[in-house]
Amino acid sequence: MAKNVAFQGALGANSEIAARRYFTDSAIDCVAMNRFDQVFQAVKSGKVDFGMIPIENSLTGSIHENYDLLMKKKVWIAGEYIHHVRHHLLGLAGTKIADVRDIVSHPQALLQCAGYIRSLKRATAHPHFDTAGAAEYVAASQKKTLAAIASKEAAKANGLKVLCSEIEDNPANYTRFIVITAKPKRSKKMAAYKTSIVFALKNLPGALHKSLSVFTLRDIDLLKIESRPIVGRPWEYMFYLDYADRYDSKSSQRALDHLQELTHSLRVLGSYRPGDIHHHKA
Amino acid sequence: MAKNVAFQGALGANSEIAARRYFTDSAIDCVAMNRFDQVFQAVKSGKVDFGMIPIENSLTGSIHENYDLLMKKKVWIAGEYIHHVRHHLLGLAGTKIADVRDIVSHPQALLQCAGYIRSLKRATAHPHFDTAGAAEYVAASQKKTLAAIASKEAAKANGLKVLCSEIEDNPANYTRFIVITAKPKRSKKMAAYKTSIVFALKNLPGALHKSLSVFTLRDIDLLKIESRPIVGRPWEYMFYLDYADRYDSKSSQRALDHLQELTHSLRVLGSYRPGDIHHHKA
Repeated sequence: MAKNVAFQGALGANSEIAARRYFTDSAIDCVAMNRFDQVFQAVKSGKVDFGMIPIENSLTGSIHENYDLLMKKKVWIAGEYIHHVRHHLLGLAGTKIADVRDIVSHPQALLQCAGYIRSLKRATAHPHFDTAGAAEYVAASQKKTLAAIASKEAAKANGLKVLCSEIEDNPANYTRFIVITAKPKRSKKMAAYKTSIVFALKNLPGALHKSLSVFTLRDIDLLKIESRPIVGRPWEYMFYLDYADRYDSKSSQRALDHLQELTHSLRVLGSYRPGDIHHHKA
Repeated sequence: MAKNVAFQGALGANSEIAARRYFTDSAIDCVAMNRFDQVFQAVKSGKVDFGMIPIENSLTGSIHENYDLLMKKKVWIAGEYIHHVRHHLLGLAGTKIADVRDIVSHPQALLQCAGYIRSLKRATAHPHFDTAGAAEYVAASQKKTLAAIASKEAAKANGLKVLCSEIEDNPANYTRFIVITAKPKRSKKMAAYKTSIVFALKNLPGALHKSLSVFTLRDIDLLKIESRPIVGRPWEYMFYLDYADRYDSKSSQRALDHLQELTHSLRVLGSYRPGDIHHHKA
């Protein structure tokens, strides 16, 4: 039976493309949802098998809404996929670039194509809920003065033409997606691992430094650290940490035991194969 | 002569309130601007003496646009002010709460008052550019079915009535503002100091851990760490660090010299008196 994979956005959204590229060895049914919390909820409740969630973009940084949802919804991270985002100008079959007066897309996509949009001179940018939804909107409008910025998959899904391809100002535009599922899975034998954890530190002097030491003292590489405020406790933070080891190895278990001495709360979010772009050691 | 202080937003914005409360011992002229980068630019070019910039909120986290502008615009942080944000429902003089059908405000303010808005049942929330601008919009509309969520100062500035006060779901809502100026200032003699720096690490094993060690080995408390992506170098980050010392003390200078061994780039953003809410040691 095909697995159900939920994603946020309309057909042809980057999240759907990432889901189809990640799950290559099995047939999947992609389920479109309006909001990220709905995707988490569908996974948590068992309505779908997996969710595909963007967690970080190489140009704009972490997607904090989804870090906060990881904390709240207690799902398990089962995988990672790194997607090279490309933006294209899409219009109706008869549209010429010179006719375009209005361009709709997600605010981030508009920002990432600001140089190209300026070069069009007579076109104005308008924010939309998401990129694939903007393509849908252009198809429905039947206006030749309207264009969307979205993926080639969104062009296909909505019968639009690619007026101009790869219009982003900076091509080093990658989004890191995580694959979430309801229940923790013991990590399989793989060549490389990555583990994500979240913790709140006790109010001890040097606590943050000590919390990183528990890994580096055991030669475990740290990959990323992210802090998010704790609601109701001003200037206290939850720390999200990614490190290069499986969570159930001996050294990892010892590091996590040690970390518990320094924290109020500590949770392993998942252990998984890293996506295939080299991560900077930090 | 009165100092000019630029801020982003309309009259009665939280940034303006923060500016008036911070500069208590001198008369100031507040200059309203549409965008944060305009405030940075006005400070950098010497058009105004100071800028008042929100950098972090205790409920929603860091304001990354302003972290990125600190990096780009090379201004100096000369002070910090912590503002307790309170949200109020504002309407025309004749408006009754039961008549309100539409509520306008900044999306964050709408989110922070979501519980109250739901309790009104027949009212719908609409996002606006900023809170004080929403108050201006309600005043201009002359509609008794329209209300804004904004400060009491925005009510006063626009001749509106406070229909209901302190409607936020969580009262522990603080915004940390920084005061920016064009030129570095040698820190004065004060009881307490805070220094903000930004750096990019070399690709060394354990580099992040080592970069924090340079402070903790010298008993300098770390107050906050924030990472932002480096554009064009996927998964490499700029780190913003706040620590509890003046930048020109002997121990601080030694720590910064040591840090330079680990970094591509390192800049002191400013040294200043911390705002008067206790900071969590991290």
